[in-house]
This record gives sequence, C-alpha cells and structure tokens, in this order.
Amino acid sequence: MARFLVKRNQKLGTAPGSLVFVGKQRVDKVLLEILSYDKLNIEDKEIENLEELPKLINPKKVSWVNHVGIHDEKAIEKIGGLFDIHPLQLEDILNTTQRPKFVEADGYLFIQIRMLHLKEDNSLYTEQLSIILIDNTLISFQEIPLDVFDPLRERLLRPITKIRHRKNDYLAFAMLDAVVEQYIFIIEKFGERIELLEDQLLQRPEKSHLEQINRYKREINFLRKTVRPVRELVSQFKRSDSPIIEGSTQPYLRDLEEQVVLATEAIELYKDMLNDQLNIYNSGLNNRLNDILRVLTIFSVVFIPLTFLAGIYGTNFEYLPELHYKYSYPIFWGVLILLALGMVMYFKNKKWL
Amino acid sequence: MARFLVKRNQKLGTAPGSLVFVGKQRVDKVLLEILSYDKLNIEDKEIENLEELPKLINPKKVSWVNHVGIHDEKAIEKIGGLFDIHPLQLEDILNTTQRPKFVEADGYLFIQIRMLHLKEDNSLYTEQLSIILIDNTLISFQEIPLDVFDPLRERLLRPITKIRHRKNDYLAFAMLDAVVEQYIFIIEKFGERIELLEDQLLQRPEKSHLEQINRYKREINFLRKTVRPVRELVSQFKRSDSPIIEGSTQPYLRDLEEQVVLATEAIELYKDMLNDQLNIYNSGLNNRLNDILRVLTIFSVVFIPLTFLAGIYGTNFEYLPELHYKYSYPIFWGVLILLALGMVMYFKNKKWL
Amino acid sequence: MARFLVKRNQKLGTAPGSLVFVGKQRVDKVLLEILSYDKLNIEDKEIENLEELPKLINPKKVSWVNHVGIHDEKAIEKIGGLFDIHPLQLEDILNTTQRPKFVEADGYLFIQIRMLHLKEDNSLYTEQLSIILIDNTLISFQEIPLDVFDPLRERLLRPITKIRHRKNDYLAFAMLDAVVEQYIFIIEKFGERIELLEDQLLQRPEKSHLEQINRYKREINFLRKTVRPVRELVSQFKRSDSPIIEGSTQPYLRDLEEQVVLATEAIELYKDMLNDQLNIYNSGLNNRLNDILRVLTIFSVVFIPLTFLAGIYGTNFEYLPELHYKYSYPIFWGVLILLALGMVMYFKNKKWL
Amino acid sequence: MARFLVKRNQKLGTAPGSLVFVGKQRVDKVLLEILSYDKLNIEDKEIENLEELPKLINPKKVSWVNHVGIHDEKAIEKIGGLFDIHPLQLEDILNTTQRPKFVEADGYLFIQIRMLHLKEDNSLYTEQLSIILIDNTLISFQEIPLDVFDPLRERLLRPITKIRHRKNDYLAFAMLDAVVEQYIFIIEKFGERIELLEDQLLQRPEKSHLEQINRYKREINFLRKTVRPVRELVSQFKRSDSPIIEGSTQPYLRDLEEQVVLATEAIELYKDMLNDQLNIYNSGLNNRLNDILRVLTIFSVVFIPLTFLAGIYGTNFEYLPELHYKYSYPIFWGVLILLALGMVMYFKNKKWL
Amino acid sequence: MARFLVKRNQKLGTAPGSLVFVGKQRVDKVLLEILSYDKLNIEDKEIENLEELPKLINPKKVSWVNHVGIHDEKAIEKIGGLFDIHPLQLEDILNTTQRPKFVEADGYLFIQIRMLHLKEDNSLYTEQLSIILIDNTLISFQEIPLDVFDPLRERLLRPITKIRHRKNDYLAFAMLDAVVEQYIFIIEKFGERIELLEDQLLQRPEKSHLEQINRYKREINFLRKTVRPVRELVSQFKRSDSPIIEGSTQPYLRDLEEQVVLATEAIELYKDMLNDQLNIYNSGLNNRLNDILRVLTIFSVVFIPLTFLAGIYGTNFEYLPELHYKYSYPIFWGVLILLALGMVMYFKNKKWL
Repeated sequence: MARFLVKRNQKLGTAPGSLVFVGKQRVDKVLLEILSYDKLNIEDKEIENLEELPKLINPKKVSWVNHVGIHDEKAIEKIGGLFDIHPLQLEDILNTTQRPKFVEADGYLFIQIRMLHLKEDNSLYTEQLSIILIDNTLISFQEIPLDVFDPLRERLLRPITKIRHRKNDYLAFAMLDAVVEQYIFIIEKFGERIELLEDQLLQRPEKSHLEQINRYKREINFLRKTVRPVRELVSQFKRSDSPIIEGSTQPYLRDLEEQVVLATEAIELYKDMLNDQLNIYNSGLNNRLNDILRVLTIFSVVFIPLTFLAGIYGTNFEYLPELHYKYSYPIFWGVLILLALGMVMYFKNKKWL
Repeated sequence: MARFLVKRNQKLGTAPGSLVFVGKQRVDKVLLEILSYDKLNIEDKEIENLEELPKLINPKKVSWVNHVGIHDEKAIEKIGGLFDIHPLQLEDILNTTQRPKFVEADGYLFIQIRMLHLKEDNSLYTEQLSIILIDNTLISFQEIPLDVFDPLRERLLRPITKIRHRKNDYLAFAMLDAVVEQYIFIIEKFGERIELLEDQLLQRPEKSHLEQINRYKREINFLRKTVRPVRELVSQFKRSDSPIIEGSTQPYLRDLEEQVVLATEAIELYKDMLNDQLNIYNSGLNNRLNDILRVLTIFSVVFIPLTFLAGIYGTNFEYLPELHYKYSYPIFWGVLILLALGMVMYFKNKKWL
Repeated sequence: MARFLVKRNQKLGTAPGSLVFVGKQRVDKVLLEILSYDKLNIEDKEIENLEELPKLINPKKVSWVNHVGIHDEKAIEKIGGLFDIHPLQLEDILNTTQRPKFVEADGYLFIQIRMLHLKEDNSLYTEQLSIILIDNTLISFQEIPLDVFDPLRERLLRPITKIRHRKNDYLAFAMLDAVVEQYIFIIEKFGERIELLEDQLLQRPEKSHLEQINRYKREINFLRKTVRPVRELVSQFKRSDSPIIEGSTQPYLRDLEEQVVLATEAIELYKDMLNDQLNIYNSGLNNRLNDILRVLTIFSVVFIPLTFLAGIYGTNFEYLPELHYKYSYPIFWGVLILLALGMVMYFKNKKWL
Repeated sequence: MARFLVKRNQKLGTAPGSLVFVGKQRVDKVLLEILSYDKLNIEDKEIENLEELPKLINPKKVSWVNHVGIHDEKAIEKIGGLFDIHPLQLEDILNTTQRPKFVEADGYLFIQIRMLHLKEDNSLYTEQLSIILIDNTLISFQEIPLDVFDPLRERLLRPITKIRHRKNDYLAFAMLDAVVEQYIFIIEKFGERIELLEDQLLQRPEKSHLEQINRYKREINFLRKTVRPVRELVSQFKRSDSPIIEGSTQPYLRDLEEQVVLATEAIELYKDMLNDQLNIYNSGLNNRLNDILRVLTIFSVVFIPLTFLAGIYGTNFEYLPELHYKYSYPIFWGVLILLALGMVMYFKNKKWL
Repeated sequence: MARFLVKRNQKLGTAPGSLVFVGKQRVDKVLLEILSYDKLNIEDKEIENLEELPKLINPKKVSWVNHVGIHDEKAIEKIGGLFDIHPLQLEDILNTTQRPKFVEADGYLFIQIRMLHLKEDNSLYTEQLSIILIDNTLISFQEIPLDVFDPLRERLLRPITKIRHRKNDYLAFAMLDAVVEQYIFIIEKFGERIELLEDQLLQRPEKSHLEQINRYKREINFLRKTVRPVRELVSQFKRSDSPIIEGSTQPYLRDLEEQVVLATEAIELYKDMLNDQLNIYNSGLNNRLNDILRVLTIFSVVFIPLTFLAGIYGTNFEYLPELHYKYSYPIFWGVLILLALGMVMYFKNKKWL
C-alpha cells in the first residue's frame, strides 16, 4: 500500500460525507468514557450505552468524552447526531488517512492531528486523533488508547492543577501539546542516529550506510508530512475568534506554535544533513576508487617494464650478446632495481605514495 | 507532438475567440442528454435536436445538460448562443489543451478541469471536462463518456440521496470530487510502484531501473502539471461570492480543497523520492565500480610480481646460478607463495578483501 | 557580446532619457504607415513626411500608426514630441535590450515586449516591439516588419470581424496575443526536440547529446528570460484602470494571461527535464564505464593466472621435474582450462557475465 | 544528545508551564545583582536575599537586575512572583533549548536569544540569555557570567555615555547588539577559514578537506539555526508598540535588524560556498582519477605489444627462422623502439601526454 | 580577511553610534568641495575649512557637497553636527562594510550604496558611497574620487541639461544611475567571459576551467551580494513620500528600478550558467575517463590472450608436440592474427571502436 497517499474512500465514486471506516481496526470493542470536572470535583465514568451520554453531560462542568476505536460507523454517526456534527467531519473521523486540520464549524471546533509512534526497526507509523470542542465538552476519537495522554489524565485527577481551573479549550491544547511533545521526542531520537551516522560515514563509508541514509530519508519525509501541517493547524487554532477559546489560553497556543516551528525546523535540518551525507558517502566512494586505482597503477607501472626486460632476455635469438657475459645477470638485476626505484621516486614525487 | 504544451490554434494568427476544435475526435457522434431533478422527481432525456433544449429546462428543477463529444464546433456555438456564453469560453471548450481554470463571468460560472487516465503501460493521458453553471442548470462538455460519473448518476437516480436536495453547485462539486478522487487513485498507484522500485534499487541497481525512474519522473511531472492548477481552481470556486454557490456547499468545497492539497503534497513527495532514487542508483553504480576494480586490482597486484619472477628465471643468461641449484624450483615456489600470501594479508588489512 | 545583458547606453555616463539608438540597424529606411478604421470603413496610408501625421489622425476612428525601423533617433524624437511622450519611453523604444514592461504614464500607456524568432540552427533571437496607446491611437515601433501581424492586418481589412468593432486597446491585445502565440509555437517546437532527445539518451548516450542538452538549456534560459516578464506585463495591463482600456477587453486579457502562465509553466518543465537529462546522461556514462571495466576485469582476471602458470613452465630451472613427464603438457592444458572455467563460473555467479 | 533539537521537558507528559530546569548547571551558585542608574548616579549592589529585591528598585531610575545561573527553579519562581511573570516565560527561562523569541505579554516584554561561543576546535556552543523588560526595570537571566557584557557595563559606569540618558529599552537593545556583534565576529572567523579552504582545495584536494567541509557545514547549519530567528525577534521588537519602547530607540533597532540581515546573508553565502567546495572537491578527485588512469593506460598500452613480441621470440618453436639471423636481435630492438615511439606519438596527439 | 562579512566595529563592545572609521584609508587628505547650481548659474568651490560650509549653502540653489576620504572621524562628526545627522548614520558613513540601504530619517534622507570596480585579474572590489539629501542640499561621501561621476559633473556644467532644471533628488538619482550603469557594465563583462568559457568547456574541459568556473562563481556571488540589496533601496526611494522627492523624479526612479531588476536577473542567470558549467565539466571528465579506459581495455583484451599463447609455447615441456612441426610457427601467427581480428570485430560491434 502506498505510504504517502491513500484514497479516502476505497470504493471509487462514494458520495462525499458518506460514513465509511477507512483503516485497520485496532481495538476489539469501542470504549467510551466521560470525565467531568470543575475546580472542586472530578468524575470518571465508562459509558455502556450511547443513549446515556446526553444525560451525563453537566453544562456547568467541563466534560471530556473519550471514544477509543473508530471502526464502528454506527456509533460515530450516533454521536454526530447527538452533537449535530456535519457529516464531512464524521467522515474525517472515520478515515485514518487525513491531513491534520482545524475546522471552525457552526457551533463547534474540529481538530484532527496524527500521533507518531516509533517502531523498533526505526520506522514510523501514525494514529489519528480527532477532537471536537462544543460548548463545555471535548469529544476525542482515538484509534487505540494512547498512553501519551496518561500524564494528562493524572494531572486532571490531582486537585490542585491548573488544568482543573480551565475550560475544554485548555484541555484540547494540553492534548495537542502532548502530541507535539511526542513529535519532538521522536525527532530527537532520529537526530541522534543521523548525527551518529555522519561520524561513521566520515570514517569509512560502508554499503550499509547508503541503505541507512535512504531509510532515514524516507522516515524524515514521513515525519515532515505529518508535522508540517500541524503548524498551520495550531496557527488557525490560535487565531480563531471562536467563543470556545478563552483569552488566557492564547499564550499557551503561542507557545505550542513555537514548539511546532522548532520541530519543523529541526526536520528540515536533518533532511539537509541526510542530503549532505549522501554527498559524503559518494565522495568517500570516489576516494576509495582513487585509492584502489592508485595501488593498481603503481604496481602495474613499476612491474610492466621489468617484466618486459625479463621477456627480452627470455627470447631465444641465437646472436644475443648480453646473454653470454659473465656479469650480465647481476647487471640485469641492478638495472631492474634502478628502474623500480626510479618509478617509486616518480610516484613519491607525484604524491601518489 | 510535444506533450507538455500544445498551441491552442493550429493556424498561427487565428483571432482569439475563434471557434476551432483542437484535439483528436474521440466519439463518432455528439451525444446530448438532459437530467432534470428536484427532491421528488428525476427525468432523463436524450436530446436529438438542439432546438428543443430551452423547452426542456424547467427553472424550478436542477438541470444537468451533458454534452459528450466536442468536435462539432457548430453545436458548441449554438449552445453558446442559447445560454449567452462568451466566445472565449466556447473556444476553451473546443480546445483540449487548456490549463484548468475557474472563470466567474457575467451571469454564469465556467470551470475547466482535466480528467486523468492511466494506460496499461503506466503512462497517463487526460480528457478535458468543461462545466458551465448558469441559473439552475449545469452544462458539462466531455470528450468521451466518462465512467467516473456513473456512481454520481446512480446517486442522483436513487431518491433519498443528499445530492437530490441540493442545487447545481453541489452537482458541480460532486463532479470535481469524482475527478479529484480519480487523481488520488492514480497517485496512489504510482506511489506503490515508486516505493517498490526503491526497494529493488537498494538491493541491486539494474540498467532498467534508470529507465523506470525516468519514466516515472515524466509521468509525475505530467501529474503535477495536471493537478497543481486544480488547487487554485477549487480555491477560487470556494471563495467566489457568486449567487449560484449556496452557503451549505462551502464545507464540501473546503473538504475538496484539502483533498487536492493532499494530492499535490503527495506528488511533490514522490517527485523528491524519484530524485533520491536517481542518487541511490548512481551510488549503487559507483559501489559496483568499486567492487569490479577491487577484484581487478587484487588479482593484478598479487600476480604481477609472481609473473615477473617467473620471467626472471625464464631468461637465458648463461651465468644464472640459481637455475642450477637442486632445490631452486621448490624454493622458487615457496617464495611465490609467500609473496602471494603477503599480498593477500595486505589487502585483508586494507579491508579490500 | 554578452547575450543575457547588454548595457543600455554604450557610452558610460550618458544622461538617462538621452535618445541614443542601441542595437543593430535592421532596415534601410524607416517605414511609417497609418491604418484608420471604424466599423464601416478602413483606410491604409503610407506616410512620407512625419509632419502630415497629426492631420491623418481622425479622433473618431481608431488609428494604428506603424513605425518600422527604430534606428532614426530624430524620427522617434519627433513622434515623441507630437504625442507628448516622456523621454524615458523614447529612450526605451530606441534601445533594443529592454526588459518587457508596461508603463501607465500621464495620458498614455506604454508597452514593450520581445518578439521571438527561431533560427535554423535552433538558436533564438528577439525583435523588440514597442506600443503606445494614446486616445484612440495605437503607435507601434518594430525593428523589422513582423509577419506575425499579417493575419491581424487581414482580419482588420475584412469588414465583419470583431476587431473592427473595438478600440485600440483590443488592437494592442491582439498584437500581444500574436506575440504570445508565437512564444507557444516556439516552446512547442523546443519541447518536441527535448522529448525526442530524452528517448535517444535512454537508448545510448552519445557525446553529442551533452552538447545538445547544453544548447537547449541555454535557449530555454533565453526563452525564460524573454517570456517570464510578460506575465507581469499582461497582469499590469489587465489590472490597469486606465480609461483607455474598455471593460469588454478584460476577459481577453485574462485569457492572454493564462496563455502566458501556460507558456512559463511549460518552460519551467522543459528546464527541469533538461536537468534530468543531464543526470540520465551521466548515469549512462557511468553504466558504460562499468561495462568497459567489467570486460577488462574479466579478461584480465581469467588470463592472469594462466599466463603466470605458462611463465612458471617457461623457467629454465635445471631440476624442474614436471617438464619431463610425458603427459605434462596435456595435463597443463587441462589445468589451464579448469582454472579458466572456474573463473568464468565465479563471474557468472557474481552476475558480471 | 541530538544537537539540533532537544525536548523541553525531559519527562514526557509534564504540564506546560511547569518549572523544570533543562540543561547543564554551569555555575555553582546563583549570582544576583542590581545596577540602578539615571543621568547623574549609578549604583551597583549584589543581592544576597531575593526578598530585598523590591525595595532596591527605585522607579525613578533604570534598574538592571542581573541573574546569573538558572538552575535554581525556586529562585526563578520567586522572581516570577515578584514581577508577575507568566509561568510559560519562567519555563522558557529555565529551559536552555529555546528558539529565540520576543513575547509581548501583559505589562512586560520578554526576549530570549542565544549567545554564541567558538570553542578551540572550531565547534560552536550556545548560552541562553533571557531578558524581561518591565516598567523601568530590565531583568536578565544568564547561564554563566557573559564577558560580552563587560564593555556595556563599563559604558554604564562612565558618566557621560549615551546609555545613561536612556531607559531600559535601550539597555535591552545594547545587550542584543553585543550578542549580534559576537555573531558577526564568529561568522567572520568561519568565513576566513572557509575562504582559505577554498584556495587549498583548488590547489590539491586532500581527504581531510572532505572532513573539514563537512564540519564547517555542520557548524554553519548550527549558526544558521541560531541566528535566523533573531531577525524575526528584532523585527518584532522594532514593530512593537509597547509603551516600554521609546521612539528614540527605533533607529537603533532598525540598525540592529540590518546587522542581523547582514549576518544571515553572510551565513547563506558561506553555506553556498561550502556546497560549491564539495563540488570542487569531487571534480578534483575526478581529475586525479583521470590522471592516475592516464598513467596506467599509457604505460600498459606502450608495453603490452612489446612484451607480446618478446614473448613471441621466447617461444621454443623448432622452425622459427628469425631466431637464427645474425641481426635479428638489433632489428628486434629497433622494432620495439619504433613501436614504443609510435605509441607515444599517438598519445601526444591525443593530448594525453 | 573574510570577504563577505566584516564586523563593523573592530573592537568588540563598542557602543552603537560610536564614530570609528572601519576600512582602509584610500586618500591622503580629505577633499571637500561644493557645487551650487540653479537653471542659470553654477559655481564650484573647494572648501578648506569646514566652518565655511554653512555660509556657502544658498537655500535657493541646489548644493552638492562632495566629501572625498572618509577616514577623518572628526570631519564627519562636524558635518553631522552642522546638518543634524543621527550618529547611527555617521557611523554608517565611516564604516566601509555596510549593506546598501535607504533610511528616511527626521528631516533628511540617507542612502548608502556600493560602487563596483573590476580589477585586472577579473576580481571585484567595492567603494562605498553615502548620500545625504537634506533640504536643497546633497552631501556625498566617497572613499576615493570616483570617476563614474565625471560625466555627471560635465552634464551639470553644461547650461542646457535637464539636470540643472531639477532638484537634489534628481541629482541623487543621477548618481545612483551612474552606479547601476557601472554594475551592468561589469555584469556584461563577466557575462561575455562566462559565455566564452562555456564554448571552451564543450570543446574540451581543461583543469584550468575548474578554477575559472570557481573564480567566476565567487565573483558572481560578490556581485549578487552587492547588487541585490540595491533593488530594495531603489524601491524604498521610489515609494518614499518624503517632500524632498519631487513627483517628476518618480518615472526616473521607476526606470532605475527596472535596470536593477535587469541586473539582478542577469546575475541569477549567470549563476545558473556557472552551475551548469560545472556539470558540463564533470560530464566532460567522465567522457574522457571512458575514452581512456576504452583504450586500455581494448589493448589489454586484444593482447592478453596473444601473450598467453606465446607463453604457452615458451614453456620448456619436453613432450610438446606442436613445437616440432615445421609449419607450427606460421600457423601460430595465423591463430594470433585471427584472434586479434576477432577481438577487434567484437569491439567494433560493441561500438567501442
């Protein structure tokens, strides 16, 4: 399957806004829970039946409705109906191949972002996170339970934390912040490996380095494709004048935007470094080619005339006077050695030796 | 014929706005049909005589006038006259080499886009689709009957679909959406092949890969040239404040724009990948050159001194004492073997072996 | 003479606005004619004496004053005086090395563009065309009589054409349109050759291809330098709110702008293709180097040990037992053939054969 | 540790705005001093106990509170409390991996910039400088005492200097100016080395040059990453309409911005030069490969036929007439010499010699 | 000394606005003269004592105060005091390493630009020109007397010239125009050489070409650095609404801007051409490597088997029947010739010969 682009609707010609799950099912069963909190209290409840949801939302508290597993088109549709969400957004939630986006719709905000994971073989894959901000409620849709949100949940449960004094827009920020923090963590990991590779390359280029450079390039491209649109997303979030976003959240969004800029700049830098490494690799190859051929040339050039002379005195001409002098053989060796030394001097002079 | 640019008027000096068909005739006979629908009813009718067309358009219903085959300049001119279309737009319809465009003219909207097709040999060709939105009517001009619109027609015929509740602007969106969906389908196909090629290249570069990289590059360039202007087109469509476009169509156009952005980003990515592949190919070639010359050098350098020594004892000097000792021959072999081993050690040391 | 930049005033330190002809004189004698037309009538008259010009201009008709040959500084100055043209524009008219431009001056519009010609050896040269739009008059200055305007003149002479119903701004558009049409014609010609070259390159790179790639690159650069500023020119023409430009000419200018965009995009594309071709050429060279050295290596490696062995048995050691066995010689051949076969197997295995 | 990106909070999932020191502790003990001045007087005082700070600030004088050593999270928090600084800014101060920034917060300005240092091995490292402008006070946070500010302090202590007539905004400018001056000093140092390297490269490329080019590239990238965001910072500082910034400081900020532009332009230029140098290096390698192989080829081609001929007359055919003529041997030498001369002429002709 | 960036204040930590001369003193003694003119009269006077200057300025005439030699910090300071110039501008005047700039200060305009000179060895150096426009006066500061202004002075002295009818803003334009004309003159010179080099390269790449390409690249970079900021400068000059600039000067500034655009476009073009030339050079090297190795391979491959066969019949096996046949020797030659011919045919077939 093409990694960098996957069609949204597997069946050509599906109507836009049709609710079809696109992706791989990652959890057996949809998990739905609600976390309602204000400064004083916090309540956590798993929801078995979607119908109960409206009753559980207390408009005076912030409610975080967390929906894990997005393969159940019916469930998503029902939630869409409860909160009056546009079918296009529901389609986006169901579709795991979306570009990160921020949509300011009638009455709610819709955010989609991709969570990055690093596999053991250094390749990356992503999970999609969709967030809806409506009134005092945040609804999140995850493909699998994401452990990056565990510290967030912990902070929520502790009574004194700042997050409990704030509304759902700050909660959304905190989720995005956790995602971006994970990006930076992964870029840092890649960065370390790329910098290490550079040192190895400069020492001695190996065939395997070409493969590594190329693999890193692919992953960096993947990173870039994932992270770059997030800058736009956060910037739109920040600039939005939706009443859902409180003024006091602005500095946090500004801070988040800076983190994303930092991340994209680092990605560009590592991309450039990998291109440079390919150049170093090739220059290294050329250096070795030079070395190899210098050895061949020196050896050949030194011995070719010697072998030729030996061939001369190996001829069977009847009248070959040198063959019969007594000191011919030692003189012959002397000439050979002088010739060889001359050659060596010549190459020394040329700095080939 | 140059693939990336074809002059509009084959005869130099034709007046702008002249109606001359430019392209290859693709259907024998022009086919004209009208589809009129509202929430309750839908009617499909083939039109034999252009004169009937005005009577068939019911201003209370949405009318889709579909005109297949654009070689008949007279017919196009007549339609232009009926709907009061500017000659420049008629010229564009007749000309199959146009850049995708969105024109907001007096009283109507004009959209032109290129449909992509993938031939069996992985090369691409395009068909032109022109759309006019006027009052409650959509007139489309196709070179051949495009089967990407079959699902659309089916959705129209089914009574309950959203499309039946909407106006001709949504119909235009749905047609563009089908075209863009086809782009993404084709980019995905190319992507798979390019990613496969990368794996093969890293294993062992073959001469045929160079040809493949180059062919893909050409097609990706063609894709890019076709898809990139569509972004501008959709953006202008979205931002237009023409009364023909209803507010409720906006989110769909926004969604469509995102799909086009996704597509262009993927094209850029695959373009970069192909450039990287050319580098990998060349590095692979260099690697093999190194291998070849290492083999040559090792063999030559090991045997050159041995052959020289054999030449020495093949000379016919009368006074060559070594020739006459009893153990000369075995000693000679010993020396040769020691020399050869020394050389091999030397190359092992240099990591050439 | 440097092709891509020529100083305007050959004498350093000339005052700006000085009227000095810069270029090569292309016609013997200045030719001046006036074409006056309205819907009903058209009159063509050669002007012998510049003094008559004002009397010949009928303000109720459109007048096209065509001035061929721009080496006569006096004549240009006189026209400038008659129509009250700023000296800077007169200097521009006299100077054949100008960048295409659109100037909205007090009371008139000034347009300068370069006409492209393709010489038989595939190199390009340009002629400068200057246009002044003032009241109901268009004054054009050409270096030589340009035959691209013949169809335009024919259309003017025919009574029914659209151009006769319009003013001088449409005439200016029609002239620019003819020039841009010629650009596209030339780009198309180049495109065909470049695409052909690509096919040849992929088959077998020849030394001459390097020269061709480079020559095309130079010409494409020249094309680019000529065509790119035209986009800006047309865009300024279109956006100008000068009363000389009628509203009904706008769609034509928009259409012209699109043609220029099409042309510049095609130029960029062919530029990229030529860069790719240089890469293909180099990869092709590397491929051949590999082939050449594979042949050398295989031959050398197969024969080097054989020749060494022959050398061994060519030595004159007295006690060399193998020489005296009866079957030594056939056994020796057997060993040689086995060795050679072994080598060939080895290379087959390595896929070098 | 990755050099180009380091995560802000080492522990994943820390709440934004948490005060955690990120970096290496550089000084043993936090040093806090206050410098209060107006036109007439200046007073310098070390502060032992943070509690005294508010009393020491005289609102009629400019106060420079200098805080050296940022590992003490408690101290930073206390200062934050005293001046009512947003926790996000305090987090930034504690975190040594920030992107340079200018924040216009409620009631104060916050500036962060990186100080560059050149180590003896030509590698770079940075120190972070944070500045808060509030009322008539400037609070600076440094990792270590930075000696670039010594001349600034001297100027402050001298009675007649301009800086004493101005407010804290000018002091902030002066600090940034010192930092940027240091940037330019370092870029100049690198520039000299890079220009020197170019001369060496053109003479004779050495393996070590590849390493040098690459090291410089890395450092130039680091420089670029450090300096580029400063342009934005200074531009925001300049454009800010905060009442803290006086009109008379504007020209200085404009001047500072120009210096940063100068610095970034020079960095880009040296980056390009290093890329060019890699090309020169590779071309130089290719040149040498040509030289090496020309020597090998000439030697081989001259001697191969000679050795072959010697081999012919070394055969033991019984009926080989040439062996028995008296002058065979001298004639043989003559032929060999003629052959060799012919070859040499041939190569001379080909300009290989 | 680094060529592309030099620190403004050689002593680190100097206060901004300090008047320190940075550069090489180019004239022995400061020369100061004043040229006062109006339509009717012009007066030229050398000024010995700065104190006289104010009396010499007649507010009804245009005064051009020309100050040659900028090493005298005191003199500059005094002038600054007389005309009330900001210290930052005085610092800029004294500093010969400034980026071209246009500053609109309180009551005056400040322009700085770099004059280009071409040395005999084709390298470039620059002189700094600073211009202050205040009331009806233009004060220029030059490092040495620049002869590009001689024609300007001549035009001033002639009574009928346009320049005498205009104010100091036109004089400033005329000075900039002379500087830009000199840029174009130099770019044209470089262009001719670069185009010549391309022809030589395509014929036969020489080692010296690599050096030339590189030297031109350096100088083109230097040109670019000098010329590019001038576009911005002229554009700011043109757009300025300072009362010092008269409306009638606008078309001239527009024309000047176009000349600078022309110059920068040509610089970019030659930069690209030099990059292409490096590619041609490398392809040429590769071509020659191919040629060299084709010769080596053909010779080796033809002779290797022949020499081997000669070696076979040079062995001393006792029972080697072929040696004793009468026609062995001629047959042997026949076989050798056939083998050689076969090889030659093979290479002909492969198009290597």
